[in-house]
Amino acid sequence: MIELNGKEYECPSKIPMDLVDDKWKFLILWNLATKPLRVSELTQKMPDISQRTLSRKLKALEEVSLVHRVVFPEVPPKVEYSLTIHGERLLEVFEIMSKWGEKYAKEMGAKIY
Amino acid sequence: MIELNGKEYECPSKIPMDLVDDKWKFLILWNLATKPLRVSELTQKMPDISQRTLSRKLKALEEVSLVHRVVFPEVPPKVEYSLTIHGERLLEVFEIMSKWGEKYAKEMGAKIY
Repeated sequence: MIELNGKEYECPSKIPMDLVDDKWKFLILWNLATKPLRVSELTQKMPDISQRTLSRKLKALEEVSLVHRVVFPEVPPKVEYSLTIHGERLLEVFEIMSKWGEKYAKEMGAKIY
Repeated sequence: MIELNGKEYECPSKIPMDLVDDKWKFLILWNLATKPLRVSELTQKMPDISQRTLSRKLKALEEVSLVHRVVFPEVPPKVEYSLTIHGERLLEVFEIMSKWGEKYAKEMGAKIY
């Protein structure tokens, strides 16, 4: 049993999908994969997300140390988000899950479009 | 978009956890990792599961081609379950997810017991 962030997990394999439990969090991590981004840049890359939801998701990802928030001492202050080492490694895990899913779907004759 | 088994997936990385969406399915796959087992052997390894639930979970895993059901022409008939190639590869993916979760939990100072 693992007690983490106030939750209990029977198996550590459950942790990745529990931390990234919706498509927005996944897309945020994905968009931060290549370089740190400001909120305005994230909004450009994810035009369908509301400002409120984006802030909430970023905060949740920051709280579980998948994302860093860096404030640059400028006027007006510049705030940038980037992946932590945990976030980087987690994206690699998602890549492996994704590859399995793709291969499986193809071999099962799924419709992919 | 992927259309598979009557469901739609936005991203193939969602497929693994959707196919194995509870601890019983996970434990069944895990127990079949080393060798094919009969229902009675699975029951011995998972004493907490009811016969009804075990049958349902095995059927669900069989339907998505993660598990094979082989009936041997004997009297009384012998029925054995084993992992398909998809099931084998999926367990490897879970192993990777599990390792990430364990490492993350340790580095985040989780209580592990």
